[in-house]
Order: sequence, then structure tokens, then C-alpha cells
Amino acid sequence: MTTIKDIARIAGVSVATVSRVINESGYVNTDTRKKVEEAIKLMNYSPNEVARSLYKKKSKLIGLLLPDITNPFFPQLARGVEDRLQEHGYRLIFGNSDENEDKELDYIRTFVQNNVIGVISSTNFPDSDTYLNLNIPIVFLDRTSNESPSVYADGREGGRIAAQEIIARGSKHITILQGPAHIKPAQDRFQGAVEVFEELGMTYHVIQTSSFSYIEAGYWAKILFEQHLETDGVIASNDIVATAVLQEAHRLGKSVPQDVQIIGYDDIPLSSLLSPSLSTIRQPAYDMGREAGGLLIKLIEQDKVDEKIIQLPVSFVERETTRRK
Amino acid sequence: MTTIKDIARIAGVSVATVSRVINESGYVNTDTRKKVEEAIKLMNYSPNEVARSLYKKKSKLIGLLLPDITNPFFPQLARGVEDRLQEHGYRLIFGNSDENEDKELDYIRTFVQNNVIGVISSTNFPDSDTYLNLNIPIVFLDRTSNESPSVYADGREGGRIAAQEIIARGSKHITILQGPAHIKPAQDRFQGAVEVFEELGMTYHVIQTSSFSYIEAGYWAKILFEQHLETDGVIASNDIVATAVLQEAHRLGKSVPQDVQIIGYDDIPLSSLLSPSLSTIRQPAYDMGREAGGLLIKLIEQDKVDEKIIQLPVSFVERETTRRK
Repeated sequence: MTTIKDIARIAGVSVATVSRVINESGYVNTDTRKKVEEAIKLMNYSPNEVARSLYKKKSKLIGLLLPDITNPFFPQLARGVEDRLQEHGYRLIFGNSDENEDKELDYIRTFVQNNVIGVISSTNFPDSDTYLNLNIPIVFLDRTSNESPSVYADGREGGRIAAQEIIARGSKHITILQGPAHIKPAQDRFQGAVEVFEELGMTYHVIQTSSFSYIEAGYWAKILFEQHLETDGVIASNDIVATAVLQEAHRLGKSVPQDVQIIGYDDIPLSSLLSPSLSTIRQPAYDMGREAGGLLIKLIEQDKVDEKIIQLPVSFVERETTRRK
Repeated sequence: MTTIKDIARIAGVSVATVSRVINESGYVNTDTRKKVEEAIKLMNYSPNEVARSLYKKKSKLIGLLLPDITNPFFPQLARGVEDRLQEHGYRLIFGNSDENEDKELDYIRTFVQNNVIGVISSTNFPDSDTYLNLNIPIVFLDRTSNESPSVYADGREGGRIAAQEIIARGSKHITILQGPAHIKPAQDRFQGAVEVFEELGMTYHVIQTSSFSYIEAGYWAKILFEQHLETDGVIASNDIVATAVLQEAHRLGKSVPQDVQIIGYDDIPLSSLLSPSLSTIRQPAYDMGREAGGLLIKLIEQDKVDEKIIQLPVSFVERETTRRK
């Protein structure tokens, strides 16, 4: 078995120097470090457990980038990531990009400067140079890009289910609220819903929205009924917008679900507390977070990971804003 | 004007060494570093802008500890902190303590290991050794402890206002939902409400709750009406619980606000989207975050800060779960 003395001899340095390199403590000049690292590689040397734990301790930090922590979907994701990582002794730091590419780049830089050994990112810009140039493991969460490791829910299927359920429950004049164009999961669920209408040859209306903001949600809800007062079924872009639609329907004296059925998306915690409680397409946010944490740990700890792309199923949660079938 | 050459001469080292100290790049042994730092101090030397920005860049990282990111109040706080810090070139990393003291300690350690130069903490344990032993600036947010720098809203006054408003609007059989015992702001608002009832010699009921969890909120709401069906006014411990009370009132066939008035606490973004929209006591969460960011920047950048404790006012937001006065 190779010992630290062997490495020191091979590299032509003292044992103390090798120890400093392994533990990343104290100064070692670049050339010397290189020599030691090459010796370690050559000998396939595995430092003893104490040294290893010291080494690992320093580097068990993971960065998690979220696009918008004020959207209740993302804190659920974050809790899943956090719980899974903590069970394995990893620690987490968060960044909030506010869906701004510059802010995102700045957070990724901060993560790297702070020696994170992996990144989980719910980015709107998975194909940007930021990620291409990052030479540590990355998992995209609630996002996906080509063959990159990623964990996401099946948005297209979610959109299909929403359309099928609202049609099966008797709505004839259905309006789809299309989520922000730059958020791919929002477009996936929209496309899924549209597919069903096209397959059935049914007409439908679309209201385009540009954000998931709470303030604007009320605005989209007003526009919806102004443009399509006959609407008796709404497929909302997420639960926040669905909540605003429910409020606007009540304001207009419409009964939910008798006059208008509403289906949300996400199943944020407050959905079940609304009155009537919100029927919605559930994304398993907490589980998605856990899966992303698990995948990242594999990428860090294992040489080869077979299943790098994990798609989780979505499901219809029947509550009170839809009628019985 | 002192130049880098002067410092090198005084410290008895090369200009390159002084530069390494200023930029914190490359190795300088401790004695040499000390000599250079003493020379800089002696001469009141201010490195040029490039060197200074390099120097500052490395150390402009702040840690923000939140107790529960799934409670929508805290992401609002966080956005305020983040925006203020970013305007001043600081960067932020987050931790989520889950109201667990061990987890909190672990996050604070992670922050320190990653060279944060200041911490903002919404801790339930402001008097713990963790904070006493931290020798970097700390601001408590939504929390307060003795003379420590802190930013919070006036919870006692918030509780008083809630009681005064619901009484003035005609409720006679009022039940107060008392928030978790370990969360001091929750107890402040409860005490404020109780004070008003005592001053007026009015009777009231109390339901004790042990968390702000979404799942348990529905449970407290059921208990409330089971134990005190005659309740015609509810002062909720926060908006999440108020939302559950609103739902339970509807389930029991009670009209809100005609049969039961409800006042929440926080004014989370979804409150205005409920139907009926929720009357509540508004905490200026975003502004609290901004103020905390501003106070921390002062503590970092200035030798002396006069106003270290900032209390922000709360206000009644009249919406549809209370009657007109």
C-alpha cells in the first residue's frame, strides 16, 4: 500500500508538504503542488481516513441556484435538495437569480469562488457559456438541456392531463393561460394542453401572459373574462394565476365550479387551503429536489452514472374547482 | 501622497510583496504580511482603485440565514436584503435553518468558512453562543436581542391594531390563534392583542398552535370552530392560518365577513388574491430586508453606527374579510 512517505519521496518533497496539499491547508507553491498531485495520481494513492475527511470536509459545499424564491414552488424544490444533501453530509448555499442572466452568472461565480464542488440550477439559460465552461458537476432542476444531467417533471403530460380533465368534466368554452415564453416548463405544459384540443378538433382561447408575478396575475384574470366572458373552463399557467382567476370569477358573480371550472399547475401548499380548494396538476416539487440532490451526489462520488436524466410524473389533484366526472 | 513604493520601503519588502498583500493573491508569510499591514496603517495608505476593487471583491460576501423559506413571508424579506446588498456591490448566500438550532449553527459555520464579512439572521436563537462568538458584523432580522443590531416590525402594535379593528367592526365572540411559542414575533403580536382585550375588559378565546405549517393550519381552523362555534371574529397568527380559517368558515356555511370576520398577519402576496381577499396586518417585509441590508453595510463600512436598532411600523390592510366600520 502506498503511504504518504512514498508520495513525498516520489515528488521529492517533505511529508509535511504532501500533507498540506492533501488537506489544502497552508501554502504550497504551484509547481510543488503539481508534483505532489502527479505523484498521488501515479501511485493511485488514497490518503488515510483522517486526511480524507479533512479534505472532504472542506469541499462538501453545493450551490443551488433558484430563479425566483417568491414563487412558492421553488422553496419546496429547495427543501427537497437540502434534505437529501444534508443526509449525505453535504452543505448547501443558495442563490436567487430573479430570472436575470447577469445575476445568475454572478451567483455561479460566487459559488465557484467559494469552492462549491457541484451546482444544481433551475436556470432559464441552461445552454449559456456559464454552464458549458463550468468544470464541476451540474444538475439542471425543473429544467433540461440536451444530454446534460437533469431532473424535471413531465410538463407536456401535465398540460395534456389538465386539458383532458377539464374537457371530461364538461367545460365547452375553455381558455388557456399561456405562461411566460422564456420559461420552458411553462411552454411545455401549454403545448401539452394545445395538443389535446387539436387532437379532438376542439376550439379554445389563449391568453398570453409574460410573468408569474402575483401583481400581474390579477391583471391576466381580468383580461381573460373581458376577452372571453363565455369561458366556462380555465387552464391556468400556475396556481398563483389560478388563484387570481378564482377571485375574478367570484367578483363577476360566477360560481366555481358550476359556472367556471379552474385547473391550476404546481400544487403549491396554499392550493389546498383556498375556498373552494384548487384542483391542480401536481408537480412533485419536494421529490424533484431530492432526486436532483441524489443525482448530483452520484455525479460527484461515482466515476460513471448511468441514469443522468430523471423525469418525474405529474398527476391531477381533484379538489373543488372542478366538477365530478 | 503615499505610494506603494513608500509602503514597500517602510516595510522593508518589495513592491510585489505589498501588492500581494493588498490583493490577497499569492503567498506572503505572516510576519511579512504584518509588517506590510502596519506600514499601510501607519501611512494611512489607500491603495489605488484597481487594487482596492480587487481587494474588496474577494470579501464582499454576506450570509443570510432564514428560518423557513417555505413560509412566503421570508422570501420577501430575502428579496429586500438581496436588492439592497446588490446595489452596493455585495453578494449574498442563503441558508435555511428549518428552525433547527443545529442546522443553523452548521450554516453559520459554512458562512464563516466561506469568508462572509457579515451575517443577517432571522434566528430563533439570537442569544446563542453562535452569535456571541461571531467576530463579524451581525444584524438580526425580524428578531431582536438586547442591544444587538436588529431590524424588526412592531409586533405588539400589530397585535393591538388587529384587536382594535376587529372589535370596532362589531365582532363580539373573538378567538385569537396564538402562534408558536418559540417564535418571538408571534408571541409579541399575541400579547398586543391580549392587551387590548384586557384594557377593554372584554372576554376572548385562545387556541394555541405549535407551528405555521400549511398542513397543520387546516387542523387549527377545525379545532377553532369545534371549540368555539359561536366565534364571529378571528385574529389569526399569520396569513396562512387565516387562509385555512377562511376555508373552514366556508365549509361550515358561514359567510365571511357577515358571520365571521378574519384578520391575518404578514400580508403575504397571495392574501390579496384570496376570495374574499384577506384583511391583514401588513409587515413591510421587503423594506425590512432592505433596512437590514443597509444596516449591515453601515456596520461593515463605518467605524461608528448610531442607529443600530430599527423598528418599522405595521399597518392594517382593509380588504374583504372584515366589515366596514
